[in-house]
Amino acid sequence: MKSEFEFIRDLRLLFPAPAGIRGIGDDCAIIPQSGGADTLVSTDMLMEGVHFLRDDITPYQLGWKSGASNFSDIAAMGGEPTGCFLALSVPAYISDEWVSGFMGGFREISEKYGFPLLGGDTTASPDRICICVTVIGKAPSGRSRERGMALPGDLVCVTGTLGDSAAGLDAVLKGLPRTDEVPYLIERHYLPSPRLAEGLILSRNEGVHAMIDISDGLGSDLRHILDESGVGAEVDTDSLPLSERLLSFCRRYESDPLRFALSGGEDYELLFTVDAFCESRIEVPHTVIGRITSGRELKWRGASVDYRGFNHFRKI
Amino acid sequence: MKSEFEFIRDLRLLFPAPAGIRGIGDDCAIIPQSGGADTLVSTDMLMEGVHFLRDDITPYQLGWKSGASNFSDIAAMGGEPTGCFLALSVPAYISDEWVSGFMGGFREISEKYGFPLLGGDTTASPDRICICVTVIGKAPSGRSRERGMALPGDLVCVTGTLGDSAAGLDAVLKGLPRTDEVPYLIERHYLPSPRLAEGLILSRNEGVHAMIDISDGLGSDLRHILDESGVGAEVDTDSLPLSERLLSFCRRYESDPLRFALSGGEDYELLFTVDAFCESRIEVPHTVIGRITSGRELKWRGASVDYRGFNHFRKI
Repeated sequence: MKSEFEFIRDLRLLFPAPAGIRGIGDDCAIIPQSGGADTLVSTDMLMEGVHFLRDDITPYQLGWKSGASNFSDIAAMGGEPTGCFLALSVPAYISDEWVSGFMGGFREISEKYGFPLLGGDTTASPDRICICVTVIGKAPSGRSRERGMALPGDLVCVTGTLGDSAAGLDAVLKGLPRTDEVPYLIERHYLPSPRLAEGLILSRNEGVHAMIDISDGLGSDLRHILDESGVGAEVDTDSLPLSERLLSFCRRYESDPLRFALSGGEDYELLFTVDAFCESRIEVPHTVIGRITSGRELKWRGASVDYRGFNHFRKI
Repeated sequence: MKSEFEFIRDLRLLFPAPAGIRGIGDDCAIIPQSGGADTLVSTDMLMEGVHFLRDDITPYQLGWKSGASNFSDIAAMGGEPTGCFLALSVPAYISDEWVSGFMGGFREISEKYGFPLLGGDTTASPDRICICVTVIGKAPSGRSRERGMALPGDLVCVTGTLGDSAAGLDAVLKGLPRTDEVPYLIERHYLPSPRLAEGLILSRNEGVHAMIDISDGLGSDLRHILDESGVGAEVDTDSLPLSERLLSFCRRYESDPLRFALSGGEDYELLFTVDAFCESRIEVPHTVIGRITSGRELKWRGASVDYRGFNHFRKI
């Protein structure tokens, strides 16, 4: 079976976007409107047993996360929220309480980030919960930041810290005691914060070129920027922003923080490239982790392994 | 567990639409744009074992139908196509040929009706195929036809014929020999034609008030119009448009054509109400089947049973 990325490559050939529309291949599609604005659209599916294990996540957390992972795609374009749509397939033996908890989490995040639920679909399922969220945003015409906009010489930057979410997932899967820094890391995994405000500020700075959210892991998501932009990059792994709690967790459980930071996904931080001259004036807390180069190669300085992001499509 | 309709009622209370936006409760959400147009959005999920059985439908047919059922929601608003998004969850043991066949059917209908694929999501599934299509359309500001626009005295009309799709499904589930009219009926079930052109013409006629597509069955979908409009209706079941092939099939297999026409779903014909004065000038072939009344009651004249549409949420 083809990988997700091979499949998407095929789809782009099979479904070329109409003139003026940015179709398959970015965090969102960009649909120009006549009034000088662009409509941004993205859709994501979460399948029980692949993206979550029902016993390991509360319905509230799952509702929240279903919103967060999608709202993050609007953040990655530098867009503002319009609304969202939720398709939910639920087995008959799932309780009304579970569904209420899920909707509670979804409602909380949709209110917090301003994405009202405008429609959707509810349906039965034989045995697994499946969730599909479609998110709609907007941006002034031409303001959206795409993956393919990186230029040689740009600095590569990230918001926040990397790897906390992956370490949280690791703790869940290994059933580690929920003490010390573990609850924080698990919360970072289950209740991530999409960077809407940060993405909006970044998109207003002309020096910010390419942008993407880190959903598959830095290694994989940076690769998307490089491939779309036709450039390479050098990343200094010693400069990656790692939280104190991640470092403490890794000391305690003898884990490699770089593995979590580079190959782990679902941080939902923003990865962007910026003109070196403009970087110091960016009003969003961020860390410079490398530089875009004119080759096509991605070099990790300081790490011994070519870490890659994970790929849900290949996991089973 | 709550029914789909109870759940949607709860959601409408939990998620009131922002001012100016038509949110939960119609075929599509209506999002006004600054340039005098409205964006229409709808999303639908198809789960293996609930909406289709993999052994009974070819991947091409499933791809086509996944598009058709969604494009039909744009038709029901009287909208024009913009594009669509496809989220697809597929078990690892499904062959690349199956996926290619599915995408072939989806591509064929998206090209035929002008809904280019603008994005989506592909992901693994432990054991079942799940498909979620989101469709985007447009209409001049205020032109869309909603369910809640029916007025007492309106005539109730439908395009095409009713019940063919349900009879086709019946033939599939019973494993009837695919002779005589059976292949036609099965094709109506698996390769339905959304009524985009008809919906657009109807929306340009000011006398056309409420509109919906028949996805759950006439009984259920007419009930949506009545509930949203706060009106009732009398339907003359003897006037329902039934195809010769449906009648022939029902004679051969001693089935009740009214049951297929009223309770069967997935005809994807348009059900609309129209000012009696304007009805004769409508340039879309249609059949008058009843009249909107000022009460809240739905009366079936001629039939002995209160047929209802089916409800996927209750099926299992």
